[in-house]
Amino acid sequence: MSRRRRIYEGKAKILFEGPEPGTLVQYFKDDATAFNNQKKGTITGKGVLNNRISEYLMVKLGEIGVPTHFVRRLNMREQLIREVEIIPIEVVIRNVVAGSLSQRFGMAEGTVLPRSIVEYYYKSDELGDPMVSEEHITAFGWASPQDLDDMLSLSLRTNDFLTGLFLGVGLRLVDFKIEFGRLYENEEMRIVLADEISPDSCRLWDVKTNEKLDKDRFRRDLGGVAEAYQEVARRLGILPEGGPRDLKGPSTMQ
Amino acid sequence: MSRRRRIYEGKAKILFEGPEPGTLVQYFKDDATAFNNQKKGTITGKGVLNNRISEYLMVKLGEIGVPTHFVRRLNMREQLIREVEIIPIEVVIRNVVAGSLSQRFGMAEGTVLPRSIVEYYYKSDELGDPMVSEEHITAFGWASPQDLDDMLSLSLRTNDFLTGLFLGVGLRLVDFKIEFGRLYENEEMRIVLADEISPDSCRLWDVKTNEKLDKDRFRRDLGGVAEAYQEVARRLGILPEGGPRDLKGPSTMQ
Repeated sequence: MSRRRRIYEGKAKILFEGPEPGTLVQYFKDDATAFNNQKKGTITGKGVLNNRISEYLMVKLGEIGVPTHFVRRLNMREQLIREVEIIPIEVVIRNVVAGSLSQRFGMAEGTVLPRSIVEYYYKSDELGDPMVSEEHITAFGWASPQDLDDMLSLSLRTNDFLTGLFLGVGLRLVDFKIEFGRLYENEEMRIVLADEISPDSCRLWDVKTNEKLDKDRFRRDLGGVAEAYQEVARRLGILPEGGPRDLKGPSTMQ
Repeated sequence: MSRRRRIYEGKAKILFEGPEPGTLVQYFKDDATAFNNQKKGTITGKGVLNNRISEYLMVKLGEIGVPTHFVRRLNMREQLIREVEIIPIEVVIRNVVAGSLSQRFGMAEGTVLPRSIVEYYYKSDELGDPMVSEEHITAFGWASPQDLDDMLSLSLRTNDFLTGLFLGVGLRLVDFKIEFGRLYENEEMRIVLADEISPDSCRLWDVKTNEKLDKDRFRRDLGGVAEAYQEVARRLGILPEGGPRDLKGPSTMQ
């Protein structure tokens, strides 16, 4: 593989310059962090699984008309994506109380919300990703009111579709985080889903047992982290044919 | 069972007066008709399966905030529903070309639509359920513009959720028909999903083989009709515990 320009390195992914203008290569690492980088670790095979899971979910979302940055998977750990201008807001959609919502309001984890709640967080490691309101977002120019409208409507469609899809495979979509970007094409701009959708960014509980099959296993030292991610991929019917042994993939960057 | 007042008898269901004011009992028959009553038959066990399938889908839609007329299942063939004022419009949502759309425009069945298409049909056996436009609907007073807005937005949410749910169990939601009613409660009116959602009203194709698992097996004399409905219920995880032998249920009205 030829030497490529590294555009950005995050906690769980690296972005490289893509083969054509307007594209990037998104590389999925096995690194895991939590609590704003205070906890660090490695989940062997996570990058391979998240590359597959995110590919599958983005393709299926694209099929129902939710635009995404995804182009195609390139190999075990990399996918080709459209280059977008990332909006520095994490959109969190919650169907069931868990995590920070549970702590902030003293509500029991597992309480079903009367309706889905959408939250916004400003992406900033230094500030610890503070929660923000629509007012902050538009006042500080992070997104326009029209951008926000599009982000909200795409978030709700994504929630409806993914809630159904995960229910079909026996999983409850408790909450999830997504990011959006501005895609410039033919002198027009549109908002598209970006980043990834995976057990790193979703809380997924088994419908019958409430067992956690997501990154909370890492955050809370519950063990069986890689196995949980693998189970999600297995239920979605997208485990690589070689099976678990293939999941390690190249352990270092090429 | 006490003698109950029969409110309405349709092709596949009967509505009885319910136990409390504002409720009805919806009874699912095994009768099947197609092509505006020109073809008639019986699918043994269909009523039992559709009662279960429609219960499951309505409950899950209710959980994501799509209001429905469903209250609870009463027994193998009956469910308790809220009495609503039925809007005489069948809403058809299409994701893939099939059936009348294929014939009307000479398009190959299975062609994926560039975006989901919503169609409206006026419920009238005498007229053969003619297709109508939003203009007809509001001009003839069948629904107000606000009713139609609500119906469209609930139809699209239902489509996103059901497309995901059926994909999770290996089925492609090709198209489906739903009906809405006006529910009057606390001096307010709201539009809710009514009637049923089942393989009578959905086209469902196996994701891998494209095998039809819906009423088209009856319409087109493909055989294995009851088995197809049973397979849908099995994949959704809602087959009655007694298994297939229980599906006949009481074959006549009590």
